[in-house]
Amino acid sequence: MEWTCPLPLRDYPTIVMGHGAGGQLSAELTEHLFLPAFRNPALEALTDAAVLPSLGGPLVFSTDAFVVRPLFFPGGSVGELAVNGTVNDLAMAGAIPLHLSAAFILEEGLPLETLGRIVARMAEAARRAGVHIVTGDTKVVERGHGDGCFIATTGVGVLRKGVELSPAAVRPGDVILCSGYVGDHGMAVMSVREGLEFETLIESDCQPLHTLAAAILEDPGPVRVLRDPTRGGLASALHEIARQSNVGLRVDETALPVRPEVRAACELLGLDPLHVANEGKLIAVVAPEAAEAALARMRRHPAGADAAIIGLATDAHPGVVAVRTAVSATRVLNMIFGEQLPRIC
Amino acid sequence: MEWTCPLPLRDYPTIVMGHGAGGQLSAELTEHLFLPAFRNPALEALTDAAVLPSLGGPLVFSTDAFVVRPLFFPGGSVGELAVNGTVNDLAMAGAIPLHLSAAFILEEGLPLETLGRIVARMAEAARRAGVHIVTGDTKVVERGHGDGCFIATTGVGVLRKGVELSPAAVRPGDVILCSGYVGDHGMAVMSVREGLEFETLIESDCQPLHTLAAAILEDPGPVRVLRDPTRGGLASALHEIARQSNVGLRVDETALPVRPEVRAACELLGLDPLHVANEGKLIAVVAPEAAEAALARMRRHPAGADAAIIGLATDAHPGVVAVRTAVSATRVLNMIFGEQLPRIC
Repeated sequence: MEWTCPLPLRDYPTIVMGHGAGGQLSAELTEHLFLPAFRNPALEALTDAAVLPSLGGPLVFSTDAFVVRPLFFPGGSVGELAVNGTVNDLAMAGAIPLHLSAAFILEEGLPLETLGRIVARMAEAARRAGVHIVTGDTKVVERGHGDGCFIATTGVGVLRKGVELSPAAVRPGDVILCSGYVGDHGMAVMSVREGLEFETLIESDCQPLHTLAAAILEDPGPVRVLRDPTRGGLASALHEIARQSNVGLRVDETALPVRPEVRAACELLGLDPLHVANEGKLIAVVAPEAAEAALARMRRHPAGADAAIIGLATDAHPGVVAVRTAVSATRVLNMIFGEQLPRIC
Repeated sequence: MEWTCPLPLRDYPTIVMGHGAGGQLSAELTEHLFLPAFRNPALEALTDAAVLPSLGGPLVFSTDAFVVRPLFFPGGSVGELAVNGTVNDLAMAGAIPLHLSAAFILEEGLPLETLGRIVARMAEAARRAGVHIVTGDTKVVERGHGDGCFIATTGVGVLRKGVELSPAAVRPGDVILCSGYVGDHGMAVMSVREGLEFETLIESDCQPLHTLAAAILEDPGPVRVLRDPTRGGLASALHEIARQSNVGLRVDETALPVRPEVRAACELLGLDPLHVANEGKLIAVVAPEAAEAALARMRRHPAGADAAIIGLATDAHPGVVAVRTAVSATRVLNMIFGEQLPRIC
């Protein structure tokens, strides 16, 4: 994760407008910073588009912009988020993630060392996820017109054979599985931003989920849908599934894995862990007869060690998500309306 | 290009942080603004990734971030740029452009009407270029931490059969063709930004170039390389080709199509038209025996009506770009070093 500024870049210790102007400074940034970190044959061509082999199957395509504040937080940075966020969107669609692009919008004055560290973390995350960053772009905006470093990543992958995921496939009786503790990412970012201190440091769960998804999809037939509950938390992900399937979902609050320190932080900030972002968790809706086997496969995977069955699909309240609380009451789980945890990813 | 704010969005006439929070406001923006404008089956699934048919050939993949100021300028807006810029990067690699993704980074306070107009122009540009915007993302940053609207678009396409483009293929004697007047885009943006007034309004040349590229590639064998000279202008594009091919390039300044009003604006601002950005022009390097036929095909296409042969590849000065001036002197054409025309795209 260390980064040493290479010689040709040392005359400009911070980003200047020229780094985005398409001239010599732009070329130096590409050749001495991005290329060494991300090196692969497609990127080496240094053209505006990467030419890659045929995928040999249906294309899966996803994009995300990352504007997290601060750029570095316990357990990760905008760099890991930018790679894993896009890898996970592909994985949730049932794809094998293959290639990533990265577009940087840098603010004049950003220390080159900060960019170097972000890029090193992206490169490491890409290696871990088995993807290549094959093409990119860098723009620079004047001081006060950006915020350090925004990154938009886009991924392409190929759909796994035999996989057909859709909320429309969800049926009453289907089982909802969650791959582990929820709320870690959102609370890690909020804690450092709000200066909260707990006995235990809350770390982001930012990690790639494609191999966990692959484990679940070893038996693809009974898997209805996969989702990574990022912005808006589990609530938004469940809402989308309920709405798109027009089936009701019922979650058992007591079954939901939440770390004590995350629960404490949520209470302090008046938040529901179900509304807090995750960056390394998934939910799977699976046919009832296949749920236990899917759970076992998840638990054998490091990213799913704390997986649990957290609820069921039901015909009792089509399109609505309900939570059964610790005192056996039932409440409707609302999606957040607007702002709650800004710039969490 | 007109845009009327749909009913569910009217409670929030400007972008608020909640539009990027992944909750109900985010969903409303997607469903009532992006979906109606970009509508296509892949986008309608409203998932984080688009699942698309197999491409059936080599994948071409390109990304660009767009941070132009102002957002609207004579002849275009950030919306047309975001679509055509990525379409053209695919086209220059010899691809048929197929699918686009769009990631928006919006600043709190951006009028929804402005976003609506940008999105309408993107939709129109996508229709014109024959591509679909199949997936996207929206993030919002606090007032003063962004600049209205940044857009990162990524495109995928399939490589045209029989096409093999590479600067490494350039040989001394090859002919350099330019598809039309250079410097229009950069001077259109600079004129409005600097408040310059000329008798004739300078308009951006922003347009898709994939069908012009297709016309040139009707006979693909003799075509060495295609480039769209955007940021850094013709100089940067020629430099890249010269450097990557290790062949010298010589451009005849008198053969270069430059509009009188663009030349006047350049003189006023102390700029060389060869350094000024284009968004609807391409250069092609073609084997000498095929140059006249390629020029004829270009001129039959509306986007190439003013095409001209502007120079030659030479073994006289490997890797160097030289310009033969109007007084028959020869000067070395340098790439811009750093800032010259900031935020032109």
